[in-house]
Amino acid sequence: MRSLKPGLIEVSAYAPATVANLAVGFDILGMAIDGAGDTVTLTRSQESGIRILEVKPATGLTLDASSNTATAGLLEMISDLGIESGFEVVIEKGIPLSSGMGGSAASAVAGIVALNAFLESPVTTKELIHYALIGESVASGSRHGDNVVPALLGGLQLTRSVDPVEVLEIPLPEAVHCVVVHPSHRVDTKMARSILRKEMFLKEHVRAAADLATLIHACHRSDLKLIGKCLRDNLIEPQRMELIPGFMSVKKAAMEAGALGCSISGSGPSVFAWFEDMASAEKAKNGMIEAFKAAGLSAQGGISKGRCGGARVTRRL
Amino acid sequence: MRSLKPGLIEVSAYAPATVANLAVGFDILGMAIDGAGDTVTLTRSQESGIRILEVKPATGLTLDASSNTATAGLLEMISDLGIESGFEVVIEKGIPLSSGMGGSAASAVAGIVALNAFLESPVTTKELIHYALIGESVASGSRHGDNVVPALLGGLQLTRSVDPVEVLEIPLPEAVHCVVVHPSHRVDTKMARSILRKEMFLKEHVRAAADLATLIHACHRSDLKLIGKCLRDNLIEPQRMELIPGFMSVKKAAMEAGALGCSISGSGPSVFAWFEDMASAEKAKNGMIEAFKAAGLSAQGGISKGRCGGARVTRRL
Repeated sequence: MRSLKPGLIEVSAYAPATVANLAVGFDILGMAIDGAGDTVTLTRSQESGIRILEVKPATGLTLDASSNTATAGLLEMISDLGIESGFEVVIEKGIPLSSGMGGSAASAVAGIVALNAFLESPVTTKELIHYALIGESVASGSRHGDNVVPALLGGLQLTRSVDPVEVLEIPLPEAVHCVVVHPSHRVDTKMARSILRKEMFLKEHVRAAADLATLIHACHRSDLKLIGKCLRDNLIEPQRMELIPGFMSVKKAAMEAGALGCSISGSGPSVFAWFEDMASAEKAKNGMIEAFKAAGLSAQGGISKGRCGGARVTRRL
Repeated sequence: MRSLKPGLIEVSAYAPATVANLAVGFDILGMAIDGAGDTVTLTRSQESGIRILEVKPATGLTLDASSNTATAGLLEMISDLGIESGFEVVIEKGIPLSSGMGGSAASAVAGIVALNAFLESPVTTKELIHYALIGESVASGSRHGDNVVPALLGGLQLTRSVDPVEVLEIPLPEAVHCVVVHPSHRVDTKMARSILRKEMFLKEHVRAAADLATLIHACHRSDLKLIGKCLRDNLIEPQRMELIPGFMSVKKAAMEAGALGCSISGSGPSVFAWFEDMASAEKAKNGMIEAFKAAGLSAQGGISKGRCGGARVTRRL
């Protein structure tokens, strides 16, 4: 049985949005971005168990703790650690639902990080990931860490295994500017996964693996020119792009503005692109938003520079 | 038309044996090793064209220049560059035939490097690779650079593309000791390729790509412990191991001696393993040779430490 820090009543934790897959790393690569994130606040309560008080803005997300991504992992963590106190939960969704920006991972991570802040002896990073993955899998239907790990740790993260948890931070060149544009459209994560071919050609594997290996090498070398040669996805993107109205024009706008690469963020519909400088990134962001508009969708965009931080406690009471 | 250096009559060039695939990098990764290699000697002749005088030891390799891996690329290079002189060729095979140690690549590379030494203005590295690949493809039936590139350049090389030629040297930790054990058995490269499943599962791709990405990262970090977690092949090895009598016992001997990983060298039958120190490598080498013996095959082994050099001109006359 783990004891809680005496006198601590309320903790809020924030976890950032993330871009998963990153063209070359389906299910294993992801990066944290600035400007959007979810906040989860836990307040100790007299009653045992977990009770979701509110989701802001009211999104239609379930208030049932075992089905909500922000709390499913919490329940497991509370049970495993023998925590006797109950908590009331408020979830602030800064990341649009089903946007491909890792919203469910961010909520799951923020909840776990908040609970961990209550513990006299906090759990390890691997355990945090383990519990956050439980929450995230409620949304995605499978346990993969490409959103959860960067949402927790920040930076560019390679999740080489989730069972056991094994993650590596890949150095992200400071000059990388990541644009993420989010159209007013939803893609269901489970559906986006179910449409993928389960089989592929050995040849496709060799090419995709070469691009991934090159990206890892290029990041270590801070070789942006080389990144520009390998940041592409011939495997998953062709299968998912039809789920995103206007995708080809959006990508074209990014590439014409000088993108090192451009592809789907997570399972979409958000689209990300990497640039060498802020001017091209700004230009691309506007062009990508315009391209979504031409396809009938309003859109919003943001730019993150270099390594962005992960989850953090934002308030203790 | 390229002119030849006046007064130069004879050039010998050496290219080392190589371990391709390296468990995680099917068709794209390879490393040069010490202790075995092929030498090709070109002597200017009055007659035009290429004439193979001798292959030592007499191996049954064809003396037809267009079908021999050491000369097929030479013919193309001579034709492309408009070289009018003819050459007599002697090939010294230090690498056993069909051993999985990159013998055909070494011969192809040595021939091209020897010819290049005759040129007043030598061709670029990319062109050397291009011509060597032509020679190598005579043996393997397809153009892939995982033996040719390290045979030419030395070190641990990622061939991310052969058309156009794009290669990257991955830093090989100095502490890596590579054992290669070669049994008295032949595996035909084309056959070893033809038995591979053309299709695979997306899941298999994700796992294999994660291991490759991890190896690239671990090499940059000189993290041998991490190398020990990812240097494995669940994709190709299970399909090819039946071509190698005693493979499982040989691998067991390597792993029990402390190998970071052990798998098939190229398409086999040679087996390679990486170690952190010479003592384990020596112990493993002996154990692996014994295991082959128990399977009815005599075997020989060698150990290379850290980065080994590539092809070089060994004699000018």
